[in-house]
Parts: sequence; C-alpha cells; structure tokens
Amino acid sequence: MKLKNDILIRALLREPTPYTPVWLMRQAGRYLPEYNATRKRAGSFLALCKNPDLATEVTLQPLARFPLDAAILFSDILTVPDAMGLGLYFADGEGPKFERPLREEWAIRDLFVPDPTVHLRYVLDAVRQIRQALAGSVPLIGFSGSPFTLACYMIEGQGSDDFAQAKTMLYTRPDLMHHILDITTQAVALYLNAQIEAGAQAVMIFDTWGGMLSHAAFHEFSLAYSRRVIAELKRTRDGMRVPCIVFTKGGGMWLESIAASGCDAVGLDWTCDLGAARQRVGERVALQGNLDPAILLTSVDVVRGETKRVLEQFGRGTGHVFNLGHGISQHTPPENVAALVETVHDSSAAYH
Amino acid sequence: MKLKNDILIRALLREPTPYTPVWLMRQAGRYLPEYNATRKRAGSFLALCKNPDLATEVTLQPLARFPLDAAILFSDILTVPDAMGLGLYFADGEGPKFERPLREEWAIRDLFVPDPTVHLRYVLDAVRQIRQALAGSVPLIGFSGSPFTLACYMIEGQGSDDFAQAKTMLYTRPDLMHHILDITTQAVALYLNAQIEAGAQAVMIFDTWGGMLSHAAFHEFSLAYSRRVIAELKRTRDGMRVPCIVFTKGGGMWLESIAASGCDAVGLDWTCDLGAARQRVGERVALQGNLDPAILLTSVDVVRGETKRVLEQFGRGTGHVFNLGHGISQHTPPENVAALVETVHDSSAAYH
Repeated sequence: MKLKNDILIRALLREPTPYTPVWLMRQAGRYLPEYNATRKRAGSFLALCKNPDLATEVTLQPLARFPLDAAILFSDILTVPDAMGLGLYFADGEGPKFERPLREEWAIRDLFVPDPTVHLRYVLDAVRQIRQALAGSVPLIGFSGSPFTLACYMIEGQGSDDFAQAKTMLYTRPDLMHHILDITTQAVALYLNAQIEAGAQAVMIFDTWGGMLSHAAFHEFSLAYSRRVIAELKRTRDGMRVPCIVFTKGGGMWLESIAASGCDAVGLDWTCDLGAARQRVGERVALQGNLDPAILLTSVDVVRGETKRVLEQFGRGTGHVFNLGHGISQHTPPENVAALVETVHDSSAAYH
Repeated sequence: MKLKNDILIRALLREPTPYTPVWLMRQAGRYLPEYNATRKRAGSFLALCKNPDLATEVTLQPLARFPLDAAILFSDILTVPDAMGLGLYFADGEGPKFERPLREEWAIRDLFVPDPTVHLRYVLDAVRQIRQALAGSVPLIGFSGSPFTLACYMIEGQGSDDFAQAKTMLYTRPDLMHHILDITTQAVALYLNAQIEAGAQAVMIFDTWGGMLSHAAFHEFSLAYSRRVIAELKRTRDGMRVPCIVFTKGGGMWLESIAASGCDAVGLDWTCDLGAARQRVGERVALQGNLDPAILLTSVDVVRGETKRVLEQFGRGTGHVFNLGHGISQHTPPENVAALVETVHDSSAAYH
C-alpha cells in the first residue's frame, strides 16, 4: 500500500519535501489522558506493551489529536532482554528492572538469541495491527534499544546514575562484555528485521546510555555494535527503502562517527546546535531533533518561538525531521504539543 | 611563603613541569575511612563544612595517604545560596536541599549579595587554617559552584534529573533568571576573591548543570556568567598568578567557547578524547581531567592501564593536570587511588 504521507521517509532519505515532518519521542505517553485510561485498563505498562490490541490503540492516540507525520510502535526498549529470559518488570513508580540480571559468568555464557517470531510475537502482532489501522496514512517507525544500552540494563538489572556494574565489567572483563554485546547484536538485528518484515517502514536504534562512556569505550562497546546491527538490516521492503535512525543521548561530540555508521539519519539531543551539526555531517545523513523537551512545559508562545528557532538553525533544504531531543515529559500540556506540530508545519514550508 | 611543590600551578599556566601533576575531584570524601570517622564526629556533612578545624582535617587526609600535587578546600558548592538565606540542608542519604527555594518573584527581587567575610567566614577561616597546615607543601585550590549551577538548585530547591522548574523559569521568565544570575555572579566573584585573599592559590568554578542546557541557552545563561566571574577575579596574590579552572560537566561540545572564557584551564569530563580536546583548544588553556571515575572501581591493573592511556592521549608537553572526569565514587578502594597517583607520577615524566 502506497503511503498517503511519506514526508518522513523522504526527509530521512534527504529527498525534497514540501515541509519538515514532525513526530515526538514517546508521543504515545502519560501526558495524554486517553493513554492513561488505556494503561489503567491494561493493568500495567508491561501488560499494555504485551497486548497488541491495546498497543495499537495507544500508538494511534497521538495521531488522532495532532497531525503528526509518523506513528511509532508503542513498546519498550527492553523487550529483547525480556525475551532472553531476564524477566522484565516495572515496580510501581520506578523504572524497568530485571528479575534475573546478568551476575554470573555461566548466565552470560548461556545467553541465547531469541527468535522474535516466537518470543516477541506480541510486538510483531502489534506492528501488523498498527499498520492495518494506519491504513497508509503515515509511516510506522519500529525500534529497539542499542546492544550497549540493553547490555547496561541486563548487567545492572535496572536503571542507574552511572551503571557502575556494567562499566566495571566493561573494564575488568571486556571479554564477557563483548560476548553479551555479540549475542545482543544478533538479537537486535533479527528483531528489527522482523519488525520490518511485519510492516515497520523506518527503524530507530535508541542508544540511551552510550553517552556515559569515554570516547574510546563508546566507539568500541556501543557504536561498533550499532553499526553491526545496521549492516544486517533489510533496508528495502515492497520496493521502498526502510531508513534507519540512530539516537545516542549525549553523543553530540561523536556526531561524525555516528553519521558514518551506515544509518540514514542521526537523532540529536537538545544540547547540539542543529546548524553546527548539519555542517559537521554534510550530505551524509539526515538529522532528527532537537527541541529541549523542557520547552513543552512552558507556554504556547514560548513553544512557538523555540520551535521556529530550531527550524531556523537547520535552515533551508531537506534532511531534517523535527523531534524533541529526548522523550516527552509526562507533565506536558497537550495544547503545547498541538502548538509545536502546527508551528513546524506552518513555518517550515518557507525552508523547502 | 614559596611553594615546595608548585607543579600544579605551573601546569595550569602551561609552564614546563618535570611530570604531570595530579589531584582528584572530591579527593577528601567517603571512600576514605578516616573521612567517615571525622564526619561522624562532626555530626553531619554540613556541620563538617562549617567547622574550620574539621574541614582542615579532612582536606589534609588524602594528602597524608597519597602524594597528590594539590589540596582542595573541603566545602560544598552551595555555600553561597546558603549565605543568601535559602537554608541549605542535607536530608539523610539524599542530596542537598534548600528550606526556602526561590518560588516567588518577591523572593527573587529580595535576593542580596552576601558579604563573604561575614556570611561565609567559616569558609575563609578554613582556607586560612588549611594554608597554615599545608605549610607550603602543595597549593590549595578554592572553588565555587557556577552562577548557573547555583541558580538551578536555588530555583528547584534540590537536585533533579532535568531541573524542570529552573528551565521553565529560564524559558518563560528569562528576566527573572537573569536577575538571579546577576546577583549570584556578584556573590560568586566576591566569594572566590575572598578565598584568594584568605590564601587559595588556584580557583575552580564547578558548572555541574550547564551541560543540560541547549547550545544557545548554555552560552546565554551559564557561560556568560562564569565569564563575568572570571573577569572580576583577582588573578595575582603575593606576586603569584592565581589560575582559574572552569569545569562544565557535559560541556565537551562547547570546549572552544569555554576555553575563550578567560580561564587558564578547562576541566573535562571523561567523555572527551583528551588528545582531540588538546587539538581543539591549542595553546589557549591547560586541560584538567579526564579519567572515568568508574575505572577506580575496578582493579589496580586496570587503573594503571587506563591512567597510562589518558597520559598518552594528552601526549608530550605541559598543560595537563591529571584528574578524574567527575568526583570520586564513595565505593572506590583507596589502593586504586594509590595506583593512579603513582602511575601518573611514574609514567608522565617521559612526556615532559
């Protein structure tokens, strides 16, 4: 089925577009009352992720409110380690945790690459259902955590300020860390390919924790494995190119090497100047970002002004996908999101 | 009194030195059993800061164990807002908090510049006592939080993942934010000058939170005010130049503009490649850093190897002060610190 609105895909491939496309990381989330209602019905965040009907419902909610240019699969970045048997759960009001984090060498040696069509079938079912529900209106973005980010949680067992256990393993037992990353890389590649097979029209790799590494460790333990995932991706489906976006939070210093990873687009957090970033990557990749999500906590007027500033920083021409520099805050008033989307659409035409 | 070991001062001024000097952020801290004993006697962290005898005692503790090339005043970055009447306190096991954060416009308009010789006398007494106790062995570094970092805590009332309230004020009431920063800048400049007057032989500005700003906001709300502080500093005392170091955590992308702030040295977190950073700043400033503090949680062998890597990254010549990229972790085994200091001293001579 041909897409009615393929502006996102074209911008990611740096093809001409009439305006700048926009979607928002975590656009289906707790700032929307309708999301909270569905989540309550599901019983928990994880139950919501694992129920394709409800995951489809919440994926579509922001699109019913705002004329966004893409849908993103509603899921969690940690589904892959869950499928590996680590037992993902969410304690009330806390972040993700694993029942069986990787503590022992035998457990690391026992890691297996899960078959996504078996162990992550609920995700693929959601992808298929969302595609059907979207009916070609806008593209669907699939995603996964990066191998390194998954390894951080698998070793630490939960989020952390400094992921001291993961880093200690990286420095004292690099062989074990590389083994975890190797298995996880295979798993992520299979998983993203299965999402593409099921209907994802673009994919994104979230490297949430690569930015806490040193320059050398980032390249060896994070980027090298994201690059391997990208190299293994099926990049066309139904004759359409499936673009791949890599987002490393705090990765602004490494923009050139991320842009050379084989991806089509690089996600930028809000600390980068978008104009300077564009100069640094040249014609190699598109850029996605990078409004500070804190701006959505202010007022419609401030949102409009700062949104225009981001558009102006990127300047004329294609290759920009408007987004936040990080996921949307649960405290965001939905009317500010409406103002953002409207401003991107209205003000960006002049740059194309 | 002439310094017996002035290697730190010379390296900060990019003068030739026989080896690379080393000190560690938070070198007097909870990883040392003797520190914990003194803190227990003091009753609390804040009581320890406010007691010049005990502050002197803990400042000297790491120097008794390790042949460090500098002492750093034991104090807190939030003494200035405390002196402004905001009521600093530390809840058990939590970070710093203020009893009276800046919530109302009248409270912001009422802010005053405290006289450090009155309201922060306990700090100046500690500086004088530490200088006396050091007896010219190594230089004493004084410090303050940057105006922006202080403003973050003053508005938020405590630490935060995103400092959403501070950012909201910055975007919705930039006039109020600039007023807070203006008063705080005057206070910080007076405070650092009073520390220099009392005997501090180098000073450091800790911009802990500037790195969470956008490129534009960092330059307008953080760096511009640190620059004003630097411009107002007395840079010589007793005929000796008093070098100034600026450390912005997460500021690697803005290295060139930080280096142009008027400081003598730039502190780098561990995400920067030290060699690349040196190329970027050229002859303008010295660099301080930048071992990942997580490496100190590993083993003596790993510490030695990674310490050598940092020295190699900087390469030949002066202008490097070895340090961590962030404060030392409380879980650090002291023997790893000993290995670090020994390795810096032994291995760096070849580069000078």
